[in-house]
Amino acid sequence: MKILKVGGGSSINWGYISEDVAQFLKKEQLILVHGAGAIRDKIATQLNAPTRTIISPSGFPSTHTDKKAIEIFLMVYPGLVNKQIVAKLQSYGVNAVGLSGVDGRLWQAKRKKEILSQEGSKIKVIRDSYTGRVEKINTSLLSLLLDHKYVPVICPPAISEECEIVNTDNDTATAVLAHEMKCKEIIMLFEAPGLLKDHKDESSIIRHIPKNKIDDYLKYAQGRMKKKLLGAKQAFSTGVTKIYWGDGRVPHPISRLLTGEGTIIS
Amino acid sequence: MKILKVGGGSSINWGYISEDVAQFLKKEQLILVHGAGAIRDKIATQLNAPTRTIISPSGFPSTHTDKKAIEIFLMVYPGLVNKQIVAKLQSYGVNAVGLSGVDGRLWQAKRKKEILSQEGSKIKVIRDSYTGRVEKINTSLLSLLLDHKYVPVICPPAISEECEIVNTDNDTATAVLAHEMKCKEIIMLFEAPGLLKDHKDESSIIRHIPKNKIDDYLKYAQGRMKKKLLGAKQAFSTGVTKIYWGDGRVPHPISRLLTGEGTIIS
Repeated sequence: MKILKVGGGSSINWGYISEDVAQFLKKEQLILVHGAGAIRDKIATQLNAPTRTIISPSGFPSTHTDKKAIEIFLMVYPGLVNKQIVAKLQSYGVNAVGLSGVDGRLWQAKRKKEILSQEGSKIKVIRDSYTGRVEKINTSLLSLLLDHKYVPVICPPAISEECEIVNTDNDTATAVLAHEMKCKEIIMLFEAPGLLKDHKDESSIIRHIPKNKIDDYLKYAQGRMKKKLLGAKQAFSTGVTKIYWGDGRVPHPISRLLTGEGTIIS
Repeated sequence: MKILKVGGGSSINWGYISEDVAQFLKKEQLILVHGAGAIRDKIATQLNAPTRTIISPSGFPSTHTDKKAIEIFLMVYPGLVNKQIVAKLQSYGVNAVGLSGVDGRLWQAKRKKEILSQEGSKIKVIRDSYTGRVEKINTSLLSLLLDHKYVPVICPPAISEECEIVNTDNDTATAVLAHEMKCKEIIMLFEAPGLLKDHKDESSIIRHIPKNKIDDYLKYAQGRMKKKLLGAKQAFSTGVTKIYWGDGRVPHPISRLLTGEGTIIS
């Protein structure tokens, strides 16, 4: 079994991905995890509540998810995007079932009571953000579906111990998911052919990252790619042995990676 | 096992309902179906695409669901509303799993290629509405979840044979669901204490409707209540023996109905 994590960029091609997923499933089981950031930002702007980004004192970006932002999050992730992905997969014969982390307490998180935000030279404490870190997975629900030939298509939000709906970092959650499902390999698709030395030059792809030297590559990672590297680091620390990074915009995105394109972390 | 169908009105109290569901589950299994019409209309207006209603030549209202309306439908029904209901139920210890009709092809519908709309003295043919009639249920997915103590929380849209996402009448879909799940009794909660002789007077409740005389009561039904009566008629024609209608705004909404309050159709 592998986990396929697909980013939420606007040029991700779900037709290509679905076609490849259908082929992949002939040989092996798959759990999908997806984002929806680009469409979320668009809808949030239309609803006059544009997405606000927090930069942590250590330089990592995250979303300031207050009550209103959680509502928009729910509209876009498990609503608009998840169901469109499920319908697309179904059209390729993949018996997909969409689940958020809230359903069956699939992704159980610890809510962060405070988040630190670097604003100029000051550090601000943010207390109204519904954000958490996934700590536990309802593996029995996933196994139940997998054993009966369903393909789980998972997206955030997660649910806290107090049953609050909380945004969560998808890459960290994917690492926890891989650990608890005893999954050794993760395929990640986004809007680039892999990790690039120069993010403006798609030919500057880094072919291999040694799993014990991930920190050395943080300097090449722009914005949210930094979090993907941290997610990868966490995944390796808990049992994953190989991560494939590659392009979610092109035909045969999965099989390309499995035959050597993209960036491999191992 | 019973089906609990809850309307999408803005004053439905999901705290009260969740509390009662938790009690109910000690004795019997439950499948939930819910609407989200009021919030859908509000968000649609905020997104400058207000919900448009079609009146059929026979006088029944339905929604004109074009591509944009389907997107808003997805945001609100399986997104915002379904996940908030699931989280609320979880907070009362109910292991709810939210599913739309698209997931695992739970609600398989036949898309209507044309819809007739009465506009003044003219009848217009509408071809861009993604609307369908549920004809088949993935009962094995529901049984799988129920057998493992999960409570399915279902909402539209449905999925067509061509894997289009289609809006569907919830009351008709509930009737098909009851039939295929061999469920004999349906509980329906909405924003009134039952069917009223005078819709402005909540004390004018009709206590009993004989199941073979439903048509005689259509004259009391306002707007979408007409469809609820038609849905009831269909349910009885395919094996349901009792339908409870009652108030989703008050404490203990389910136990009230089961001890004799509300309108009983049998």
